Amino acid sequence: MRFHTRKWIKPEDLNPNGTLFGGRLLEWIDEEAALYAIIQLENPKTVTAYMSEISFKSSAKQGDIVEIGIDVIKFGTSSLTLTCEVRNKMTRKPIINVEKIVMVSLDEEGNAKPHGKTKIEYVKDRLED
Amino acid sequence: MRFHTRKWIKPEDLNPNGTLFGGRLLEWIDEEAALYAIIQLENPKTVTAYMSEISFKSSAKQGDIVEIGIDVIKFGTSSLTLTCEVRNKMTRKPIINVEKIVMVSLDEEGNAKPHGKTKIEYVKDRLED
Amino acid sequence: MRFHTRKWIKPEDLNPNGTLFGGRLLEWIDEEAALYAIIQLENPKTVTAYMSEISFKSSAKQGDIVEIGIDVIKFGTSSLTLTCEVRNKMTRKPIINVEKIVMVSLDEEGNAKPHGKTKIEYVKDRLED
Amino acid sequence: MRFHTRKWIKPEDLNPNGTLFGGRLLEWIDEEAALYAIIQLENPKTVTAYMSEISFKSSAKQGDIVEIGIDVIKFGTSSLTLTCEVRNKMTRKPIINVEKIVMVSLDEEGNAKPHGKTKIEYVKDRLED
Amino acid sequence: MRFHTRKWIKPEDLNPNGTLFGGRLLEWIDEEAALYAIIQLENPKTVTAYMSEISFKSSAKQGDIVEIGIDVIKFGTSSLTLTCEVRNKMTRKPIINVEKIVMVSLDEEGNAKPHGKTKIEYVKDRLED
Amino acid sequence: MRFHTRKWIKPEDLNPNGTLFGGRLLEWIDEEAALYAIIQLENPKTVTAYMSEISFKSSAKQGDIVEIGIDVIKFGTSSLTLTCEVRNKMTRKPIINVEKIVMVSLDEEGNAKPHGKTKIEYVKDRLED
Repeated sequence: MRFHTRKWIKPEDLNPNGTLFGGRLLEWIDEEAALYAIIQLENPKTVTAYMSEISFKSSAKQGDIVEIGIDVIKFGTSSLTLTCEVRNKMTRKPIINVEKIVMVSLDEEGNAKPHGKTKIEYVKDRLED
Repeated sequence: MRFHTRKWIKPEDLNPNGTLFGGRLLEWIDEEAALYAIIQLENPKTVTAYMSEISFKSSAKQGDIVEIGIDVIKFGTSSLTLTCEVRNKMTRKPIINVEKIVMVSLDEEGNAKPHGKTKIEYVKDRLED
Repeated sequence: MRFHTRKWIKPEDLNPNGTLFGGRLLEWIDEEAALYAIIQLENPKTVTAYMSEISFKSSAKQGDIVEIGIDVIKFGTSSLTLTCEVRNKMTRKPIINVEKIVMVSLDEEGNAKPHGKTKIEYVKDRLED
Repeated sequence: MRFHTRKWIKPEDLNPNGTLFGGRLLEWIDEEAALYAIIQLENPKTVTAYMSEISFKSSAKQGDIVEIGIDVIKFGTSSLTLTCEVRNKMTRKPIINVEKIVMVSLDEEGNAKPHGKTKIEYVKDRLED
Repeated sequence: MRFHTRKWIKPEDLNPNGTLFGGRLLEWIDEEAALYAIIQLENPKTVTAYMSEISFKSSAKQGDIVEIGIDVIKFGTSSLTLTCEVRNKMTRKPIINVEKIVMVSLDEEGNAKPHGKTKIEYVKDRLED
Repeated sequence: MRFHTRKWIKPEDLNPNGTLFGGRLLEWIDEEAALYAIIQLENPKTVTAYMSEISFKSSAKQGDIVEIGIDVIKFGTSSLTLTCEVRNKMTRKPIINVEKIVMVSLDEEGNAKPHGKTKIEYVKDRLED
């Protein structure tokens, strides 16, 4: 799993108990899954269709730095199944896991559209073509 | 299921495709589950421990009004299991469902703490005591 | 008066003195009035035209849960007059009152447009027709 | 009346109809009144107690620049009564008026506290003392 | 230099160390430079092209009021060069300085467009014409 | 240079012209520099002291994905000098460059504090010790 995006937990990210607001964390995960899928499928109209169960393993507090990791589980015909882990950057302690996030590629009318991708690609390689 | 909180979808709630950003929706659900549990358990230190799988059933667009429904599935010793549905207020079309959200009541040290509740209570009745 | 929407006061909602920022509260009231009027008048182009005087009766602090109540005062030809109260969900202590909020239904050019409504309707009943 | 603070209307400030969200405008007014009163009364614990009726005179759209004007109506013992107008910076067309906003100076316990001020002061003059 | 816009530092503006988040300050400066240039050049399509080096001179904390000053350095053919200082409103202590901010006037295609302005104008005078 | 954090440009990140708001971009850069420095220096009280001149090379639009790259220029006694580039993830077109960002490590009183670091470290290696 590769960890890219990092977040610095600021007061605006806290719940009233002073720990990281779970809703903010879910927002970050959904954004990361969406942009990861858009990069892979090269279709900006890619949406979240499903998330498997979510366990909140540990909390995070103001000033902590978290990193969000994404990996590919499966390339479907018009879908892409991802897995996601968020952990504390300094201690690597897991904060949350989502085993499966299914992203679906859509056409202009909003119907599932085959994306033709079968494996992870790197932007670097595409640009070298 | 009772639907309380309502949201009016504004530009700040949209993803780049112009539909409701899924991350925002998850943020709203987590807040609603948290405040519902705090009201029932009368403990402000109540946190989200688990969400079951989430299906994004339909989308919503700018100007739509959505309402968030919560119901209780089970009172545990220190937990409260909820179910949640978000739907379009005007058409009642379901947008997202989360079958189980487990909230846990904590003590000052962050350990699970029995809440002593066994059924839904209304604030009205508490205040009349 | 029926209370629907609930808010959980988070750090992002506070003024520098650590109590609920009045501006945020006014924002919540305006949104609630707008969506209530849109639901009743079935016209998304409904805007706030007037608010009567506002008394800040008590404050609220981080972690408090507030609920926003709206009631109808009068159905005009193209307007709808509402009244609003925000109170602490747990103690029912009033936080703010706005006796009259006038919402106006507009046509595409932004002119007042008769809405043809004369009494409160429930979405449930509309859908059963 | 002196106009200081200016705002540039961005997508995040719009309601779903694409015009300036009234709630955002009320938030800006409340912040401006609060900071104006804090500057005058030299007490950071100054809160909004009352706003007189509010007329939404005209709307504003994305890209418009608005300016917020504040003037003093009266110095009370522990209060300060302000008046506020928001207008379009380029056309000077009024957008909203609040004839009276009463700000109250508080002590540490949250009780009204005499502020000893009787007229507008400029920070420049204070610093020259 | 004239100081117009004022900001009241709220919890949502803080970094995790509890002082004003530098990124928020840069956001405020960019907005103020943009709207100042738009007012002067009378072209809403005016963008930031360059900022000279930035020194963070002192910090600010929750509850402080800051004011943002802008002055014109030079009117170019299609550009406008500004200078900016942010200071504490109550103490006048400088917080940040940006010696040069170059704003460029664009046409519909995004190319530099001569603005025909050579000196500071006041909206008041324009409206009196 | 290593690119970690990615952002998906949503309506809330746009200026009124519909392109990425420069202030938002500066906010993202400041956050990324701060968290990068905190990770390297292992001191959460690390602040931005200086940014060299900034050129806005190209714009970005709604739906674009940008990535933020940071590299180390120099380890000082209590400072860390970074360089930053933001580019479009899909095309690698540079959007903004900041050649030098000086971060300073502080002690509890806010004075510069030697950090004892002389080269880039990876969290993985620290944890293996």
